[in-house]
This record gives sequence, C-alpha cells and structure tokens, in this order.
Amino acid sequence: MQFLIIGGDAAGMSAASRAKRLRPDLQVTVLEQTQDVSYSACGMPYNIADPERPIDDLVVREAEVFRRQQGIDLRLGHTATAIDLAARLVHATTPHGLQAKLPYDRLLIATGARPLQPEIPGVDLPGIFALKSLADGRRIKAYLKGQEVSKVAIIGMGYIALEMCEALIQRDIKVDLIKPRPRLLPWMPEALASTVQATCEAAGAHLFPGTAIQRIERSGDHLMIMGDGILLRADMILVATGITPNSELASEAGLQLGPARAIAVNRRLQTSDPAVYAAGDCADAHHLVTGRSAWIPLALRANRAGWAVADNVCGVPTELDGIVGTAVFRVLDLEVARTGLSQTEAEGAGFSPVAVTIQTRSRAHAHKGAVPIQVHLVGDTVSGRLLGAQMVGGEGVAHRINAAAVALQNRMKVADFSQADLAYAPPFGPVWDPLLTAANQLKKKLLPPKESERP
Amino acid sequence: MQFLIIGGDAAGMSAASRAKRLRPDLQVTVLEQTQDVSYSACGMPYNIADPERPIDDLVVREAEVFRRQQGIDLRLGHTATAIDLAARLVHATTPHGLQAKLPYDRLLIATGARPLQPEIPGVDLPGIFALKSLADGRRIKAYLKGQEVSKVAIIGMGYIALEMCEALIQRDIKVDLIKPRPRLLPWMPEALASTVQATCEAAGAHLFPGTAIQRIERSGDHLMIMGDGILLRADMILVATGITPNSELASEAGLQLGPARAIAVNRRLQTSDPAVYAAGDCADAHHLVTGRSAWIPLALRANRAGWAVADNVCGVPTELDGIVGTAVFRVLDLEVARTGLSQTEAEGAGFSPVAVTIQTRSRAHAHKGAVPIQVHLVGDTVSGRLLGAQMVGGEGVAHRINAAAVALQNRMKVADFSQADLAYAPPFGPVWDPLLTAANQLKKKLLPPKESERP
Repeated sequence: MQFLIIGGDAAGMSAASRAKRLRPDLQVTVLEQTQDVSYSACGMPYNIADPERPIDDLVVREAEVFRRQQGIDLRLGHTATAIDLAARLVHATTPHGLQAKLPYDRLLIATGARPLQPEIPGVDLPGIFALKSLADGRRIKAYLKGQEVSKVAIIGMGYIALEMCEALIQRDIKVDLIKPRPRLLPWMPEALASTVQATCEAAGAHLFPGTAIQRIERSGDHLMIMGDGILLRADMILVATGITPNSELASEAGLQLGPARAIAVNRRLQTSDPAVYAAGDCADAHHLVTGRSAWIPLALRANRAGWAVADNVCGVPTELDGIVGTAVFRVLDLEVARTGLSQTEAEGAGFSPVAVTIQTRSRAHAHKGAVPIQVHLVGDTVSGRLLGAQMVGGEGVAHRINAAAVALQNRMKVADFSQADLAYAPPFGPVWDPLLTAANQLKKKLLPPKESERP
Repeated sequence: MQFLIIGGDAAGMSAASRAKRLRPDLQVTVLEQTQDVSYSACGMPYNIADPERPIDDLVVREAEVFRRQQGIDLRLGHTATAIDLAARLVHATTPHGLQAKLPYDRLLIATGARPLQPEIPGVDLPGIFALKSLADGRRIKAYLKGQEVSKVAIIGMGYIALEMCEALIQRDIKVDLIKPRPRLLPWMPEALASTVQATCEAAGAHLFPGTAIQRIERSGDHLMIMGDGILLRADMILVATGITPNSELASEAGLQLGPARAIAVNRRLQTSDPAVYAAGDCADAHHLVTGRSAWIPLALRANRAGWAVADNVCGVPTELDGIVGTAVFRVLDLEVARTGLSQTEAEGAGFSPVAVTIQTRSRAHAHKGAVPIQVHLVGDTVSGRLLGAQMVGGEGVAHRINAAAVALQNRMKVADFSQADLAYAPPFGPVWDPLLTAANQLKKKLLPPKESERP
C-alpha cells in the first residue's frame, strides 16, 4: 500500500515516521517543497536571539535519517501541483522541473500555512522578511550578521511579532512594532494586554497600534515605513501579520474547506474524500468548547494529528477529541497564556458569557520574589460552564493554564472548577491558586441574582 | 445564633471571617490555645532561611483586626477541654486558669494537628524542636540566633524535613537527615526519590535512611544521636516525623473518627453530630480517586473547608466534592509534586494499577537551560482511569501537576488525558508536554495485549 504525504513538516513527518513504525511494509513517500524537514519552527525566535548559535541547531532529524533509518521515501524540492481524487494521483514538479505523477492508496495533505502578505506598496523590498520556514530564519539570521542592523520595525503584534521583539532586544537591536488594528492582542482584555504593552515599552520597544501603513520605501541604507502620521526608519522589517492555510491544492481538487479556508477534516482527520487526510496548519479541528470547527494552527495539534493519521492509515482506528485552543508565549519577562474562548469569541459562539479579571501574586504572602499575575476567566451564564482562561504574569503562567485547559476538555462548570485540588507551596503561589481565586469570583457572577448578593 | 469555633488557625479563622461577612448578626466566638492566629505556617521554612526577616512577617492578620474590624469574639490563650454534645456546651480553660462553659448553636472543631513525637529516649532535651506552630518557628529562629549552630540533625525526611534542609543549607548550616524507614519519600518510585536524594547530597546534606535511632544525649555543647551503627553530632535537632490530628476532644465527646483518627465529616463538613462541624488538619475528606475517606492535611483544603462550614452555618448549603491529594514542595533546586495515588496506594484502594516513569526535559529541543523532568503516572487496567501523577524536576513541575489534578477530579481515562490540549512554547516545555508523553506510554500499557504490541 502506498501512503503519500504532501509536506514534510511537523504533521507530515510525524505521520511518516509513525506509519513506518506501525507498518514497516508500507510504502511511505513524502514530497517536501523545501530542503528542510523536522525542525523546531517555534524555536526560531530564540535561535535568532543568539548570534553564536547556528540556525541548524533547530533541526531535530536530518533528511538522511528518515531515509536510511526509517525507510521513508523522502523527496526534497518536490512541489505537488494537483491532486486527482478520482484517479488517486498527485501531480508534482521535481527539483529538475520535470513533471511526475504519484499514485496513492492513502494521501495526507500536510501543506502547512504561509505568512499573510499585507497589501502594502513596497512590502517586497529587500530587507523585508517574514518568519515561517527554516529558510526564513536562515535568511533573517544571515541578514542580521551581514548588515549593520540597529533598528528593526515589526509589522504586526501577535505572538511571533512579540517573540521576535524579545529576540531582537536581546541582540541590542531597537524595535518598533506597528499594526493597523487598534489594540495589542485583541483577544485579551485591556487589563492584560496593557501589561504586555507596558513590558515591551519598558524594555525599549515602541508600539504603534492603530496605525495604518501607506507604503514602505528604501531610502539610502534604510527602509522607511510611512504610516498614519508617523514615519519609521528601520534597517530591517519583519512582517508578522498572521498566517493562512495552504489549502489551495485541496480546494482545487474539490475537497471541502472549513473555517478560515482550512481543509475540513473529521475526527479521524479525513477530508471530504475518505482516502485523503489532512493534518497540521492546513487543516481545521473540532473545538471542544464551541462544538464547532476551528482553525487554530499550533505545533502540538500538528504532531498529534500526524500520529492519528498514521494510526488510521495503518488500521488502528483513532479519533481525536479536538482542541480547546491552548497557547502560550513568552515576551521578555512575561508569560502570556490562553485556553478556550475570549468573551467576544464566546458571544460569537452563541454563549451568554460573563468574565472576571483578577490580579494576584505569583507566590505566597510574605514569600520573596513574588510578581503580579493577572487571570481572566470567562463563564457561561446559561450552563455555568467555564469557557476560557487567559493569564499574564512574570512566572507561573505557562503551565498553570493547563489546569484550565483540562477543565475545558471536560466541559467543567465554573463551580466545579473552583473546587479543584490544586497544588500549594509558598514559592509557587498563594494558598488559593490564582485560577481558583478567579473561579470563586466568576462563580458568584454566574449565580442567580438572589444568591449573588451574598458575598 | 452562636457560632463557636475551637481553633484559630487556617480553617477556624477562614470560617469565622466568612461567617461574619455572610451574616454580620451572627455571634462568632473563636477559642485559640496559643497567642497566634492567621499566619502562613507553610512559609516558616522560608522565613527561617533568612536570619534578617522577623518571623512575624508571616502573620497575615493581627488578632485585633479580627476583633475590631470583623467583630469576631476572638479569645486567645483559651483551651477547650470538653464538648458536651447533648447540652451544646464547650468547656474551656481561660488564660487565668478559670473554667468557662460556652454554649453554641453551631460548633466548628478546627483543632488542627500536632507533630508526632517519636519514642526516642532524650527526644525532649533542650535544643530539640518540632516545627508546626508559629511559636515553634519563633523558638527555632531564636535558637539559631542565640547559639552557635553549625550543624543540625533532622529526624524525618518528609516535606517539612526537606524544606528545612534547604532553609538551613541557605544559612550555611550543615544538615544530616536520619530516619528509620528505608527510603526517602516512600510514596515515590525509586527513580524520582533518588533524584531528590542526590540533589540534597550534592548540596552537602548527609542522608541516613533506614537507620533506627536508639537515643539522643547531650554531650557538652552538642547533642548526639545514637543510631544503628552511626553517631551524629549536632548543635540542634529538628524532629519532623509527621503529624497526627488533634481529634481527642472530638473523640471523647463521642464524635466519629475516620482514617488516621481524623474527625470524620460529610461533604458539608458535618461530623456525626449535625450541629458540629470539623475542618482543617483535624478532619478527614472525601478522596475523589478512591471514593473513600482520607486524611491528607493541607492548607488549601483547610481554607476551603473553613469557608464551606461558614456557608453551611449561614444557610448557604455547600458541599465540597473532595480532594485528590495534590501537594508540592521545593527542595533546593527541585520541585517535587504529586496528585492522586501512588501505585501502592492504588493497589491498597482496590485498583489494578500499572505505572510508567519517563524522563524528559523542561524545555524544547535546542532551547537553552533545559533541565531534566521525571514524570510517573499510575493508571487502572480495569477502568482505564488515571489514578495518580508524580513529578520531580528543576522547573515546570509545581504548576504542571495541576493539569493531572483536574484530570483526576474529572475521573478521566488515561486515553482521554493523553489528548489534553496543553500549552507549548519552547521556553516552557517540549511540544509533547511531559505529562502527555507519560500518558501516551501509559495508554499503551493499559491497552488489551493485542493492541499494546503496536508501537
């Protein structure tokens, strides 16, 4: 049986490796457009922060290892150009420009996502980069090494933008961040987002939210961003305005798309053609809080979906429950985490949400070194369910969010979550964990009016 | 209505404060044997570590605040001597040695626990301390200040012993730890416990597990512990061999006791007399994993139970689901955490457990500063349920355990927990969180034989 995989990143290579382990007799072929497979994409900002580290430190496994040790037919520089569902054929271009037709019994589309390119005149000038592939990281690192870069302008303020803000500041490079939309991290309540903004500014970054960009121009050694009422000079520009799924191949073949034009899959990761799977950043997922499909491209889901595809292809029926949208990133001294829905997202999904935001401390009363932690919890007034959690703080945020993620997975009510038996010791938090303090307050808001008058 | 509380520590004062907030008209009287209320007992080792910090930094609220601002009739130096359930009277001794009879409509017994005193000749010599009350902490701190203490022997190796080991090493005091039972942290698998032992030894502590103690003697300026084949010289000795509930008052009144002679309570915290509640370290709790009563005296439960008693006394019916036995402590560079049952405890509770132990890293591939994390998970072969988790590591353990705690609260199966959508970013863990890697492995062990042959 021929198992063909388009795309050799997290989902594709996870599926290929696992399929070969499960069924060594399987023919597994992977078509990868670039020259890179199996690298830690999320590690790129941290690698870029350190001029001494080669970017190839991020490579987890070399292509040759997949070929020799695992027997995977890995074809680098191969671009799939069309899928013929009826004939079970993939058309591809080889590195030499030849056309190839590859038959399959089972196909996995793991084409990932690509950076969104904003429609700004001059956005394709030299010295302007996106950061998605290892090749992008390599180019940025080479540029920082080869040029005199003392100032970078970042277009966008999402987590890649903020991680790169940290990385560049660590290299003593000045950073400006600019975006047309009015708020940093708009899925966060103002109280938490302003903590993130204040931390960036305290480290010397300048943030210009709500600033439309007219054009980018080169002026001598510099690039200039002309925005509404501002003019930013930079030695390099990073465009980090989000990503979009590479779903055109699937769509042109007639496969169904879901939210954000990601490839629609069922819990077995099958597309609308049962012989064709999709996984990773190009595919959607079942969201356990909304009960609907969602496109939230993240690394754990990509790896997990890759494995599940391999299981299903190899005759071990596997269904994925779904996701709750848990994500975390670090920016400078802050940990920023979320799981589930924001209040606005909850309204959009048909809930009747209320929310609380608390601020407490990362360690116990009188324990040295405590820093502020902010917790925002969203609950549903109709069902009493917990719908989402967001946290910002100097420590103890990144892993703490997981308790809320497991609560969401279990569709817990806020009242039940407020009874969680969470760990306590003075170096790690107050007796009442910040999540519990927030849950206790949210519980009161969810009670019927008479009860909620009580303290 | 008179709400009488015996014991002014975490559970007692939580109940008193909340009751007064809920119903300002209520007469709330607290009898406290010592002169201290409302202090962070768990913070004592960290305070003792710092010679410059007054021990009173640990006091959260002064007695006068409870009296004046909250209107609580707080009587320090009062010792309850008997409870007359039929007459609804508590007999007490006042600080002047007078006998008093206090009537109640609702009574809360929050008498806490006391250190176990091992039966060793000489254990009551001067220079030998236990650490439970703030007065204990004050005495230890004064002794360390007033004497030349360069070496302390600690009898016991539980979390108080290990936290004090850290505290004393921070003060450049040498530490020996000795205990008769053969293993450090016997509820932990050898692989994790030996990491803890190695860390203590690397910091200069000497551990003598499996060493029976014959007697303690004073010899000149020193204390001598005569043990099996060893002789330990110390300037001070700390006895930390565990605690036992102060349940005699309840027992003599005819109230029912539960495991470990803790006072048996239902989910509303009522004892076998519905007018009498018990909460805090003297009371038992419903264990959500075993479905039985358990005595696991910890601060969060004490505070939560105090609140729940106040709610019930004030006419807001409140049931506590129960506990899963989550605990964490720090020792030197290590975070040590547990939730649920160990394999041995699971066998004792009638499960058919299997367990896995994995070692992984605290940060992503190629991310600097990663340290080892060990995870031990226990699951039930019959139901497939997750039964317990234990972790040891240099970072990312203390809060990570909470994900497993919430899973236990929801009686999750290992297979479902292995699908948890946990947070990932390179500074905080691998793509597959250590808990998920362990759950994936445990899941394979729980599958029927045929399935488990698959990788």
